[in-house]
Amino acid sequence: MTIRLQTGGSACLYEQIYEHIKKEIREGKLLAGERLPSTRFLAEYLQVSRSTVDYAYSQLLAEGYIESRPYRGYFVCSMEELVGMEDLGRSAVGSQIHGRDDTERAGGGQYYDIRQLGDRKQPGDRYDGTVKDGEWMEPVVSERASTDQPHVRCDFSPYDIDMSGFPFSVWKKITKNILTYANSDLFSRGQAQGDYELRVTISRYLHSSRGVNCSPEQIIVGAGNDYLLMLLEKILGRHVRIAMENPTYLRSYRIFQSFAYDIVTVDMDEYGMRVEPLERKKVQAAYVMPSHQFPTGVVMPIRRRLELLRWAAGAPDRYLIEDDYDSEFRFRGKPIPALQASDELGKVIYLGSFSKSIAPAIRVSFMVLPEPLLQVYKRDCAFYSCTVSRIDQSILNEFIRDGYFERHLNKMRKIYRAKHDLMLEELLPFQKRFTVSGENAGLHLLLTAREQMSEEELVCRAEEQGVKVYGLSAGMRMTETKAATVLLGFGGLAPEQITEGIRRLKTAWEIGTEK
Amino acid sequence: MTIRLQTGGSACLYEQIYEHIKKEIREGKLLAGERLPSTRFLAEYLQVSRSTVDYAYSQLLAEGYIESRPYRGYFVCSMEELVGMEDLGRSAVGSQIHGRDDTERAGGGQYYDIRQLGDRKQPGDRYDGTVKDGEWMEPVVSERASTDQPHVRCDFSPYDIDMSGFPFSVWKKITKNILTYANSDLFSRGQAQGDYELRVTISRYLHSSRGVNCSPEQIIVGAGNDYLLMLLEKILGRHVRIAMENPTYLRSYRIFQSFAYDIVTVDMDEYGMRVEPLERKKVQAAYVMPSHQFPTGVVMPIRRRLELLRWAAGAPDRYLIEDDYDSEFRFRGKPIPALQASDELGKVIYLGSFSKSIAPAIRVSFMVLPEPLLQVYKRDCAFYSCTVSRIDQSILNEFIRDGYFERHLNKMRKIYRAKHDLMLEELLPFQKRFTVSGENAGLHLLLTAREQMSEEELVCRAEEQGVKVYGLSAGMRMTETKAATVLLGFGGLAPEQITEGIRRLKTAWEIGTEK
Repeated sequence: MTIRLQTGGSACLYEQIYEHIKKEIREGKLLAGERLPSTRFLAEYLQVSRSTVDYAYSQLLAEGYIESRPYRGYFVCSMEELVGMEDLGRSAVGSQIHGRDDTERAGGGQYYDIRQLGDRKQPGDRYDGTVKDGEWMEPVVSERASTDQPHVRCDFSPYDIDMSGFPFSVWKKITKNILTYANSDLFSRGQAQGDYELRVTISRYLHSSRGVNCSPEQIIVGAGNDYLLMLLEKILGRHVRIAMENPTYLRSYRIFQSFAYDIVTVDMDEYGMRVEPLERKKVQAAYVMPSHQFPTGVVMPIRRRLELLRWAAGAPDRYLIEDDYDSEFRFRGKPIPALQASDELGKVIYLGSFSKSIAPAIRVSFMVLPEPLLQVYKRDCAFYSCTVSRIDQSILNEFIRDGYFERHLNKMRKIYRAKHDLMLEELLPFQKRFTVSGENAGLHLLLTAREQMSEEELVCRAEEQGVKVYGLSAGMRMTETKAATVLLGFGGLAPEQITEGIRRLKTAWEIGTEK
Repeated sequence: MTIRLQTGGSACLYEQIYEHIKKEIREGKLLAGERLPSTRFLAEYLQVSRSTVDYAYSQLLAEGYIESRPYRGYFVCSMEELVGMEDLGRSAVGSQIHGRDDTERAGGGQYYDIRQLGDRKQPGDRYDGTVKDGEWMEPVVSERASTDQPHVRCDFSPYDIDMSGFPFSVWKKITKNILTYANSDLFSRGQAQGDYELRVTISRYLHSSRGVNCSPEQIIVGAGNDYLLMLLEKILGRHVRIAMENPTYLRSYRIFQSFAYDIVTVDMDEYGMRVEPLERKKVQAAYVMPSHQFPTGVVMPIRRRLELLRWAAGAPDRYLIEDDYDSEFRFRGKPIPALQASDELGKVIYLGSFSKSIAPAIRVSFMVLPEPLLQVYKRDCAFYSCTVSRIDQSILNEFIRDGYFERHLNKMRKIYRAKHDLMLEELLPFQKRFTVSGENAGLHLLLTAREQMSEEELVCRAEEQGVKVYGLSAGMRMTETKAATVLLGFGGLAPEQITEGIRRLKTAWEIGTEK
């Protein structure tokens, strides 16, 4: 392996190492099962610090290009799907790779083992409608929600975000400017897909930060993911058999259910949605969250992504719906690229939103349609007017275009990372009795009980101490779970609330008082 | 008839006369076919000016309580449906009235005779997607629309509105205030049905200005009518046989078509949708615009409204969808009350929007659900998040609550009335060859050719002179029409543009040069 590092270039050192190894793997120059040099060896060889190499390796690990085997080092993952995909899309750039096939069972270590979840047939009605609200869930009837739980002092809602870091003054300034220079045009209905300028800005942002390849023409701007899914129903049609990860995001599940879609729940393994059932159950579309699955936090490795893309390529009407809901918040390494970034055949419908990254109230989401579906949209749905006001679109456009969005994201990443790290630290005493998972990204962690106990008991005992935690069975549909698991969101909590909340949880669950 | 007028009361004199006679008719004290005193007689008797009585009579005429017979005077219309409805809803308050049955054929004179429309089997593809855009229509693909018609100098679009009168400074001030005192709460998702405060404000406005009786709990706020209809599909279900007026508003037609609803087009007579086919064709829902039908401008008289309500009362799953799209703009007399105002059994789904009254870009519409459908919404759809941002909802709420909306409406009513009157005046020379209809309300008029000619010819010849007019067959679906009819909208045109545009139309259609 020869890596030529450029010290004066725009890419930092760790990124050059990461990119180089990724390229070698994708082109088949590094073969599956091949052992990478140790981080110490490579650091000395390249004359860089060891942490730089560590950083590059951990990013490759997170994206599933390499795997770590205890006491043996780092190895290239089996990538047979990779070349296959490229064969379909364009001519092969490397030799066919036949790798080991045991990575599926090897276990990523850092991933949440979904098979450990407890079996709960009742979907925990009690919490079904009372969770607090972000992009990800909403009280079914909220008018009297506040009176239902008078004693909650600390709410570890996985749906809340931190608005204290929001640049209100900038937002106000932009709003003021736009209204000052507004002409009647801005108050007209505008284009059905959303204003072209905003779509240009979104396509640039998606390309640079998520690796998504799309033109502004492919983007549909809409007021929230729910609305865009309603529009997608009109595009995909009525009788769709759709696969969803199990567990998954309940709101989307309910929406597909309201479409009377035939929903096939596919159990996740440690890499995300299993591909085999898709073929067997004659599924047409699969709804996945590859960058940070909700609720498990699983990051889908490249191998599984390519398997999914290969499945989708197997028939013209197969599509993957990628919900990239909180990809901005990754706390170690670079963000994981979107699944759409690996899609060369137009099989991915990409859904993104500013609900988590700016604010739920913004009500701006977007959908990137592959070419065949774009044609259907233009034929059958282009008369549906855009659901976002032009004023709001203009404000958002300036906010992103002028760099405020990126600055805001950087700031929030730091804030959330500090909270995330504080959570991990405070949860250390819990590790004797719970597995902590879903770390390194997003705004929540998961605690899975090692011993036999009931999720409801965990939730109720926490509530007695004035703490609200979220049972996995309550928020997501489960077909088979074993171990009690609760979600602890930290996005909306101040550090002192986190400390206080976890102190109360210790009392509730008698942590540290074990004999 | 004894009318006691209160000079010190809050209701003005004409309103007291109007209310009194209406009450007498509804209670059966004035019988169908009974002749009213002449306006001169009543004016002398009550010691008020004759124009006051004229005003009261013309309002009763517009709402269909009385009819005018040439040289004979004013007569009470047949109201047999009225008491019937009240029988169903509560105990009868008057004796059963059996009136004449010839009002159906008598002809209201002021109404647009839909049976005169020309027969056009082709739906005028050419104009199908290029009309300019307001709440009521949108280019199917707008990206290149502007290059399609380079020579249009004057666009009589029925979809445009006048933004020059919009109180930008007030809007800006409210926005600034709201952002200044905004807390994180305002950036949260908010309630699915829309913010409670806004719904309270809307319900008050609807009651005072449209006679609509509803609680804030019945209101769903959404980003545009298209979205609310999508939501309504989830409430009403998939397999609905829906009746639409013929001609009707094309956008709604397309939307119901995209739902795969079984659409029954019901030809209008001079009172609006005929009721007989609803029963015969086993329709479940009827989409109507009773206050000012689009495109014909027909105002549905009270008798027909009650017939429709009676039909709806005939089965539990029958509903009327009332699209009250431009009811704010009535230029003579009081606004015609909404159909919902006469609904005592919860059979009317009321749709309203701020697109015409404020601006299309505002993207705020609302739907009032009757109780049984509200239960379905709460059960099946309450997890769909609201599509309007809380900031926009707060701005709108203050704008209405603090009286700016009413002031704006009064101002716009004057502006549009001036344009409307100018149109009528400028169109006088056209009356030899065209019937002008749809007057007294809304932002467009209709011209129907008296002689045998083609709609396309009218449109093309206008276009050659740089004027865009809208063929009825192009914008609405027609199953049978005879006479060429074009729509002339004036909302978005300045007075001098109206004068210039009509001057050009004279040249195009050789008006005033006839031998």
